[in-house]
Amino acid sequence: MDNQQLLVRIALDAWNLNVKRTTDAFNGFTDEQMFIEIAPGRNRLVYLLGHLTAVDDRMLPLLSLGNRQYEQLDEAFITNPDRAIAGLPAITDLRTYWANINDVLTSHFNQLTPGDWLQRHTSISEEDFVKEPHRNRLSVLISRTNHISFHLGQIMLVKK
Amino acid sequence: MDNQQLLVRIALDAWNLNVKRTTDAFNGFTDEQMFIEIAPGRNRLVYLLGHLTAVDDRMLPLLSLGNRQYEQLDEAFITNPDRAIAGLPAITDLRTYWANINDVLTSHFNQLTPGDWLQRHTSISEEDFVKEPHRNRLSVLISRTNHISFHLGQIMLVKK
Repeated sequence: MDNQQLLVRIALDAWNLNVKRTTDAFNGFTDEQMFIEIAPGRNRLVYLLGHLTAVDDRMLPLLSLGNRQYEQLDEAFITNPDRAIAGLPAITDLRTYWANINDVLTSHFNQLTPGDWLQRHTSISEEDFVKEPHRNRLSVLISRTNHISFHLGQIMLVKK
Repeated sequence: MDNQQLLVRIALDAWNLNVKRTTDAFNGFTDEQMFIEIAPGRNRLVYLLGHLTAVDDRMLPLLSLGNRQYEQLDEAFITNPDRAIAGLPAITDLRTYWANINDVLTSHFNQLTPGDWLQRHTSISEEDFVKEPHRNRLSVLISRTNHISFHLGQIMLVKK
C-alpha cells in the first residue's frame, strides 16, 4: 500500500466506523422506539434514519457512481422537516434501505483508486474544479462521514 | 500541490470547518446559557466546551507535538461525568482555552508534511505500527474531527 492509498484508507476506515456505529445505534431501538424524539420538540429517530439514508443515497450521482435508489425519501426526510409529511415508509423498510445504500456505496468505494477519489464531484463544474481541486470525491466522503457523526451524537442522547 | 498534499488538505479543511462551526455555536450562547442541558438529564453546554477542549489538548502529546496545556481539565470534563465535580473554571476562561488549543494545533498542523501525517501516534507502539500503518497522526485528526461533529450535533439541539 503506497502513501496515497494509505491516506484514502484512513478516510474510508472512518466512514465504515461511523456507518457501523450508527447502524448499531438504530438496531438498538425497537420499531416503536424509533418514534422517540432525540430531544423535546426535535426530530424523531425515524426522521434521522430516513434523512441519513437519503443523504447517503445522494452520494451516488454526486460521486458519479450511478443513479439514485431512494429518491422518493427526499420529500419526507430532506426537503421537509420531521412531521410535515404523513405516511412515512415502514420502519422495517427504512432499515433495509439504510443497510442497502451503505452496502452499495461501500462496494463502489472499495474499487476507487486514490486518483479516482481526487476527481471532481458533480456539484462543481469542470471550470471551477481547475481552480478548486480540493472539491473532489474524497471531500464528499469526509463531509458525509462528519454528517453521520453529527446525527449519531443526537441519536445517542435517546433513553430507551 | 501534489496528490498527497491534496489528500491531507481535505482532511485539514474538514477539521477547520468543524472547529469553526463549533466555535460559532458556543459563541452564540451567553455565559449563563452555557449551563443549559443539551437534552433533559444530559450534559450541559459547559461540559461539552470543557470536554472538547480537553480532548483536543490531548492531541498535543498524542501527535508528538508538545506537552499538554490544559491537563487540569481532565478531572471535570473527561474522567468524570457532568455535575460530578464542583467548582468548574469560569466560562470565559473555558472559551479562551478552546480558542487557544485550536490555534496551537492549527499552527502545528500547517507545518506537517504528508509524510509527517503518516507517522505513528503515541498510543501505538513502534512494533504494532509496522503491522498497522493506518494508526497514524492523520487517523487521529479524522477521528477527532468526527468527535467534534458528534458533539456539535448535540449542541445544535439547544434552544436559546
